Amino acid sequence: MNSTPVIIDSQPVSYVIGEGALSYSSRKLSKLPRLIILLDDNVREYCLPVFKNMLAEIEVSEVIEIKSGENFKNIEQSVFIWNELTRLNVDRDALLINLGGGIVTDIGGFAAATYKRGLPFINYPTTLLGMIDAAIGGKTGIDFSGFKNQVGLFTDPLSVIIDPIFLNTLDDMQWQSGYAEVLKYALIMDRELWRMLEGKNYHEVTDWNKVIIKAAKDKIDIVRYDAFEKGIRKNLNFGHTIGHAFESYFMKSGQSITHGKAIAAGMICETWISEKLYGEDCVILEEIEGLIDLNFERLAIPSDKIPLVLDLMRQDKKVREGKLQFSLIKKIGKALHNVEVEMEMVIDSIEYYLSNPSIP
Amino acid sequence: MNSTPVIIDSQPVSYVIGEGALSYSSRKLSKLPRLIILLDDNVREYCLPVFKNMLAEIEVSEVIEIKSGENFKNIEQSVFIWNELTRLNVDRDALLINLGGGIVTDIGGFAAATYKRGLPFINYPTTLLGMIDAAIGGKTGIDFSGFKNQVGLFTDPLSVIIDPIFLNTLDDMQWQSGYAEVLKYALIMDRELWRMLEGKNYHEVTDWNKVIIKAAKDKIDIVRYDAFEKGIRKNLNFGHTIGHAFESYFMKSGQSITHGKAIAAGMICETWISEKLYGEDCVILEEIEGLIDLNFERLAIPSDKIPLVLDLMRQDKKVREGKLQFSLIKKIGKALHNVEVEMEMVIDSIEYYLSNPSIP
Repeated sequence: MNSTPVIIDSQPVSYVIGEGALSYSSRKLSKLPRLIILLDDNVREYCLPVFKNMLAEIEVSEVIEIKSGENFKNIEQSVFIWNELTRLNVDRDALLINLGGGIVTDIGGFAAATYKRGLPFINYPTTLLGMIDAAIGGKTGIDFSGFKNQVGLFTDPLSVIIDPIFLNTLDDMQWQSGYAEVLKYALIMDRELWRMLEGKNYHEVTDWNKVIIKAAKDKIDIVRYDAFEKGIRKNLNFGHTIGHAFESYFMKSGQSITHGKAIAAGMICETWISEKLYGEDCVILEEIEGLIDLNFERLAIPSDKIPLVLDLMRQDKKVREGKLQFSLIKKIGKALHNVEVEMEMVIDSIEYYLSNPSIP
Repeated sequence: MNSTPVIIDSQPVSYVIGEGALSYSSRKLSKLPRLIILLDDNVREYCLPVFKNMLAEIEVSEVIEIKSGENFKNIEQSVFIWNELTRLNVDRDALLINLGGGIVTDIGGFAAATYKRGLPFINYPTTLLGMIDAAIGGKTGIDFSGFKNQVGLFTDPLSVIIDPIFLNTLDDMQWQSGYAEVLKYALIMDRELWRMLEGKNYHEVTDWNKVIIKAAKDKIDIVRYDAFEKGIRKNLNFGHTIGHAFESYFMKSGQSITHGKAIAAGMICETWISEKLYGEDCVILEEIEGLIDLNFERLAIPSDKIPLVLDLMRQDKKVREGKLQFSLIKKIGKALHNVEVEMEMVIDSIEYYLSNPSIP
């Protein structure tokens, strides 16, 4: 197969997306003096062989391996990376290759950007979530003191190489985590993507190359116009205000659910709010709920725990005069941000979600 | 006294320099929602009263105090600052005020820039070195794993407020550390500054307001043209290639000397090299050596330790084909960078320095 990837040279980042991206990047990398790969134990097992196979002519000096899992996205692992780079006597003319999912690209970008005031790095996302979201847009960081991404910075990779070849290595949880974000792009900005996915469970989607290219381009378009989340980038928070609170609720109660499942639930609630605000002519709750339910199991939260969920939401976001700021949708493919919503309506939306069974 | 400071609005940083700078800044700060001061124990004792006195109408929410001294410019103190900011529930609409010398502005800038992907900050340098060098130019960071500034980044403060009022709080060591850099600006780019200082010991300099304004502007001019040290900013390394090696030598042997004294010695050696390369018509070694000797005691290094000094230099800088890259001067007020110098000549310059007594 000799596919041609899509190239987007969007200063200061060069994106290479789609089948053939790995081979394409090979030609560029071979010109660089020193390459170091950052990965985790999972990536070493499942993705590094693919990477080495596709980039056979590339000479990698060293591999730095961190531990996989969100629990390890912490300052200790960042210190470990700085120590390894120091031990290997790495200089700013070297390049760090972040090969992995969102955790590797988040922590790797942070460690690189702060090593000797800036080691250049390239992201090679290996998960669906990484390909269409985490590896794009310059947000890097670590969790700290119980808060997600509390320490980090905006910093751009030289390049992001997005090759769907790694999708074969993913388990169900990783598929789910990414797929909720794919649906989100469809809802907030890409009606055409919605049409490609509607009526299907993600197992039935066939043209992943096209889906990845569309979703990744959606994210690139947004961060190109608003790198620092002053305006339109906030649209990406659709589903996340309530979804994050669900995620925290399950984390606190000792069960862990995938990010995707939480965001899927959040999107149903926030679609319900959107419909209440903009009318059912525009937002077709049933249609949206239907596709989400086709892909994600409903969360089970006892309704007497709603106040706890609201507390978590208040800790996460600023409440001003009893109102929270939401990103909502006006219709499929069109979002708005900085919409103030009364807490009462937020509660109603969660009650709706919990009391209505899924639409099969 | 109602002095008017010099304002340089050099995107993205606004500089306020000279007598009256503190009061001037007061008007700007009073518009901001939440101010947090970062300082160390020394600054709290000697400078905070001055700051509070001059900015009486400003309400500071909290003070974060770190330990003073280069030994504490480390990851532990950075973690401490992140923890304090988290504990105080500081958001990105707050502002961090780095009040102190180079260590406070270095570590404070780093901690702020990496807290929640970027807390805005302002530098109020309180030492001579801070006023004319460390607080200007966006270099922030911490020492790590035995290397200076191994972890850090380029990041700009919103503003740098340089008021010579704090000079009254300095001890001799702090004066020395800064004064070597003042002489450096004179040598690399500011003949007029040289003329103001020549023939004098720094105790005899009277118009500090003028000296600070000139030296700070010199640094601003350089970083304005070359923020990331690709070219002309390297001129600032004059005296530092050999000077740093001297500094490390004394550190390793358990004696510590001021940065200024090491750089002063380095400047004599590197002036000697400059004269050898560009001829004595241009570089007047005797004149330069004379003014440096008027201000700094000579270092005593046994000549059999020169190989050790060279080893330290090789660890610090890249040696390519037996040559080191230097920033040198063509004449007083004019520098060049990326000049390759043979190690043999470096040795000769150190031998010259060690074997020639100061010119009183």
